[in-house]
Amino acid sequence: MLHLFLPQQQAMLLGMKSHTLANALRFLSIDAVNAANSGHPGMPMGCADLVTALAQHALRFNPQDPNWLGRDRFILSNGHGSMLHYALLHMLGYDVALEDLKNFRSLNSKTPGHPEYAHTAGIETTTGPLGQGFANAVGMALAQKILAAKFGSELFGRNVYVVVGDGCLMEGISHEAAELAVHWGLDNLIVLFDDNAITIDGPTSLSTQTDQQARFNMYGFATQVVDGHDSDALAHTFANLSGTKGQPTFVSVKTQIGYGSPNKANSAAAHGSPLGEAERAATATALNWPHAPFEIPAEITTAWHAIATSKQADYQQWQATYQNHPQKAEIEAFFAGDLNKEAHANLHAMAQELAQTDAMATRKAFGKCLEAMFEHIPQLLVGSADLTPSNNTQPKAAVALTAQDYTNRYLHYGIREHAMGAVMNGLSLSGFLPVGGTFLAFLDYMREPVRLAALMRTKGVFIFTHDSIGLGEDGPTHQPVEHLAMLRATPNLVTLRPADAVETAACLEIALTHNGPVALILSRQNLPTTPVKKGENEVKKGGYVVKKSENPQGLLIATGSEVALAMASAEKLEHMGHPVNVISLPSWELFNQQDQAYQESILPPHVTTRVAIEAASPLGWERWTGNTGKIIGMTTFGASAPAEDLFTHFGFTVENVVATMKETLNDR
Amino acid sequence: MLHLFLPQQQAMLLGMKSHTLANALRFLSIDAVNAANSGHPGMPMGCADLVTALAQHALRFNPQDPNWLGRDRFILSNGHGSMLHYALLHMLGYDVALEDLKNFRSLNSKTPGHPEYAHTAGIETTTGPLGQGFANAVGMALAQKILAAKFGSELFGRNVYVVVGDGCLMEGISHEAAELAVHWGLDNLIVLFDDNAITIDGPTSLSTQTDQQARFNMYGFATQVVDGHDSDALAHTFANLSGTKGQPTFVSVKTQIGYGSPNKANSAAAHGSPLGEAERAATATALNWPHAPFEIPAEITTAWHAIATSKQADYQQWQATYQNHPQKAEIEAFFAGDLNKEAHANLHAMAQELAQTDAMATRKAFGKCLEAMFEHIPQLLVGSADLTPSNNTQPKAAVALTAQDYTNRYLHYGIREHAMGAVMNGLSLSGFLPVGGTFLAFLDYMREPVRLAALMRTKGVFIFTHDSIGLGEDGPTHQPVEHLAMLRATPNLVTLRPADAVETAACLEIALTHNGPVALILSRQNLPTTPVKKGENEVKKGGYVVKKSENPQGLLIATGSEVALAMASAEKLEHMGHPVNVISLPSWELFNQQDQAYQESILPPHVTTRVAIEAASPLGWERWTGNTGKIIGMTTFGASAPAEDLFTHFGFTVENVVATMKETLNDR
Repeated sequence: MLHLFLPQQQAMLLGMKSHTLANALRFLSIDAVNAANSGHPGMPMGCADLVTALAQHALRFNPQDPNWLGRDRFILSNGHGSMLHYALLHMLGYDVALEDLKNFRSLNSKTPGHPEYAHTAGIETTTGPLGQGFANAVGMALAQKILAAKFGSELFGRNVYVVVGDGCLMEGISHEAAELAVHWGLDNLIVLFDDNAITIDGPTSLSTQTDQQARFNMYGFATQVVDGHDSDALAHTFANLSGTKGQPTFVSVKTQIGYGSPNKANSAAAHGSPLGEAERAATATALNWPHAPFEIPAEITTAWHAIATSKQADYQQWQATYQNHPQKAEIEAFFAGDLNKEAHANLHAMAQELAQTDAMATRKAFGKCLEAMFEHIPQLLVGSADLTPSNNTQPKAAVALTAQDYTNRYLHYGIREHAMGAVMNGLSLSGFLPVGGTFLAFLDYMREPVRLAALMRTKGVFIFTHDSIGLGEDGPTHQPVEHLAMLRATPNLVTLRPADAVETAACLEIALTHNGPVALILSRQNLPTTPVKKGENEVKKGGYVVKKSENPQGLLIATGSEVALAMASAEKLEHMGHPVNVISLPSWELFNQQDQAYQESILPPHVTTRVAIEAASPLGWERWTGNTGKIIGMTTFGASAPAEDLFTHFGFTVENVVATMKETLNDR
Repeated sequence: MLHLFLPQQQAMLLGMKSHTLANALRFLSIDAVNAANSGHPGMPMGCADLVTALAQHALRFNPQDPNWLGRDRFILSNGHGSMLHYALLHMLGYDVALEDLKNFRSLNSKTPGHPEYAHTAGIETTTGPLGQGFANAVGMALAQKILAAKFGSELFGRNVYVVVGDGCLMEGISHEAAELAVHWGLDNLIVLFDDNAITIDGPTSLSTQTDQQARFNMYGFATQVVDGHDSDALAHTFANLSGTKGQPTFVSVKTQIGYGSPNKANSAAAHGSPLGEAERAATATALNWPHAPFEIPAEITTAWHAIATSKQADYQQWQATYQNHPQKAEIEAFFAGDLNKEAHANLHAMAQELAQTDAMATRKAFGKCLEAMFEHIPQLLVGSADLTPSNNTQPKAAVALTAQDYTNRYLHYGIREHAMGAVMNGLSLSGFLPVGGTFLAFLDYMREPVRLAALMRTKGVFIFTHDSIGLGEDGPTHQPVEHLAMLRATPNLVTLRPADAVETAACLEIALTHNGPVALILSRQNLPTTPVKKGENEVKKGGYVVKKSENPQGLLIATGSEVALAMASAEKLEHMGHPVNVISLPSWELFNQQDQAYQESILPPHVTTRVAIEAASPLGWERWTGNTGKIIGMTTFGASAPAEDLFTHFGFTVENVVATMKETLNDR
């Protein structure tokens, strides 16, 4: 029987035993992949010893309380090795049954092909796209540092262990994440490199010369090397992990992909295909594992449960500290995550103030709203990918967070949109409400984390300013065209493009309270304040009438900066004897969620003469204009010139809108 | 007057002179940004000395023949410093007049906010989104190596100089690009780091601790440091650049952003705002530049022209070699870029062969077509971001390119989608036809280079396999949903999603001959061959009728794997007394380009009962279905399960299609 907190000497004596424990993970993985006839056995076989040692000697957790606030985090950034994680969770007694392993990769199972957050107990984040888990881990480690600074290191500041593969470290996001980890001094981050030197195409020598240990040493990590199949060495490593204060740790774990397989180990063949029955048998012989598929001897199960039991003392001690903690109520409120009354009141007051303005850039209105709320929302962590003065993401009270002071709440992400998105996801998964900004065009650098936020439904506000050709002189590389379409095509995501300062305040309230990710699309240029008093409430419905005519001949439908153009055009049309309604449609997703009656009250089916105006790709607008409508959009890239010249050049003028509406009226 | 190929000693004596030459670039930049009241003076002021020395002592070019095949390449990856490049081009006598500089950032000028390829003579690639130019440069340097191996190093193998800023080196793509440069042994790549330690948010210490020289040394670059405002030191550096064979070079050039400005130098204030008149005057005093805005003394112009003249001997020598080169005709044909007859014939034969198959995955059909053509298209460089066996991008004759053998034509990009895209752009800009593969979901990692390819209209084929939930067990992280919409919303890009092996052959011919970038969307799973003989020709029109009924009651419109489902559903509907037509719509862009008569022959306006089927976001499909149609698409993310189970689960079944069509018929 295992003792609590094995001393190092005992752990070394138990080397053989650890290897047997690891074989349980190894063969459950082999068997589940064989049963599914799909999956990745190579990584679990290679990392089973590593993960076993980690569970024995380092990781703090409680299978009965998987979301325990005091747990360490464990992430497979190389998420295709998911079966290793599921096998581990099963053996430790998490809510993952043997039956679940047998249903690996089948519909509605707890064991999907890649680990999915909120789907399986013990899975901390959704991984698969390589490198994301690493950057999520940086966010989680930072979150622990901030929580420790706020609530004390007896409760927080826990460790984050992330296994990364060769692929994770080739992806550019690994560079961004590594620099941030060092910059923020995350000595609670332990990167475990599954150093097997094999990728799908073959040996890593096909595409890289990099010595990863030298690389991470260069960044400022404390680095070490360990044989990934020497249980004693692994035990020793984990028993002596406490690195230099302020430095994250990087361990090169030398592993063999497909370890134990006589014919596939150390080759790409082990990566992404089932071993098959014959090679399973050969592997079982080689590793002295005489058990049938999915059969785990009772003594091995007992030994695994003993590992879980060995963590109980730490758990109980944490609970005792927590229950008597002077900030317990504050901690509970923090993780409940609701916006407090004062934040609401301040935002409401700011909305009233903004309603008095004649014109303001929506990015500026956003900044004012954030300023009004920031101090009342402790979960807020705001930042920008080096566009702070442009994104208006920094309220006066938001001081730059540094490795010397984790109580500050402004994050200078640097010019690293990709890591910003993934770190935001890690922060969100740790109870924070991250707000991060860049230009809308640079969504292209952070598509994957935005997608994963949508897939996980993590809370977070992606601020995208400079939202169209309205940014002007910087030109087509900086002018988004296809980006609204790509956001609107992403399931679960709410995209908000407010038309003025008042709508911005309403959108920000939606953004901060929505139970999932939100993209807030803001103008660089000033926009006139639309004269609609109840704008704030209607925005929540995604679309509403900004200008109503008695018997409208047509509808002008627009978002953001084009609503003002629609208003001006409607006035001219009215003078010409063609009354039209103007619809502001800040969020297609929210409007889609309204009942048919509401939708038809805004877009009356009998008014089929419709012109949509949006300085973006027209893709998707036919949903609102129908067959008989027209769309004034961007069918080409933009150009470099002052914004007014561009709006004229690309047809965003009262003259063109009026002419298009008249043409549409004549077409009927 | 300057001599040809200044010896080092003379260059040192002329240090003062060089600084004056640099001031011409500096003040033209200051003045143009002031005139535009928009732009980035800081970088040009900081890098003027560097760029002057580069032009004097290293760069090979001919302003009268800007596309000279034997030129060195010069790229500003930190493209916001565009005015520096325009000023340089102007002073050297390129087709950029003083008037063009005065029109900086105005509509239709030759001098847009960021450098744009094919817009201004001497601009090698479009830059702005940070880090892209660096990775383009890696592609260009590789192209030179390949061309030298093919046509001789007297003509090719020229140098590629790329200026990168702090932002370029924070972006993850810099990591991917640097690893590839070392792996490919690109000793003709010289990275010039504008090391000014300032970004928009402030000093780089706000967000990074990295010593970039140590970093690039770690990768395997030959590294050195130079004072960016010491003309002698710069001259010495460029005179002694020939590094270790096989190693790219990285030079940390210590610069001051806004050099010379008494109140803004060395601060973020110099980065992105005009200096203004007062600070321009203060800077002019500090730098002893007594000239009016846009005024360049004749002797300085003469000196700059002398630099250009000094390059003539090298140019003439190259031309002499070229005109007498035994491979001259081959070189001309190579850069003309047309597919030869044999490639066409082989592809046609393969299409005939594929028409005989019952079923095949379109990724497999693609592989067969590529195999048939590869040896006959010398411009082809094929590769994958470590998904070679899945993407089927490697014909038998395509051997891995290495630093030891540049005649090979297979590129193992590693797990680096972002760099793959940008390297492909660099290869394309150098006369090659790059084909690179990954999974469609991982378009998210390479959105920016795909966008820039579209903006530049560079030739290149982006292979995206595993194109829907049809990939099955890998689950939602690997299943694209929003990706077709994001491609279709991108201007200039042609997206092709073939329905079977025959359409795949037709799509590949389009892809290889189209004068711009193409995204080819391919299935993982087998698809039955649609029984339409003339499919090959009709695909070029973007959409065509696959199954025609006498008096169709409705239309089933689909792409890719869903065409077969539409066919099966149409058969069932026919048996039920509801004849419908089936339309395959492999390319919306090509279909949009057809005249109205053709479009209406395929989608008859009077047949308003329409059901679209595509296993992707429905965004945009209303264009084809109209108000009265229905769309069977993916409104959520996918799931992990065998493909058949997923298609059933998400409603891609004959039963659901039939029911939906009947419902639509009843709605009329």
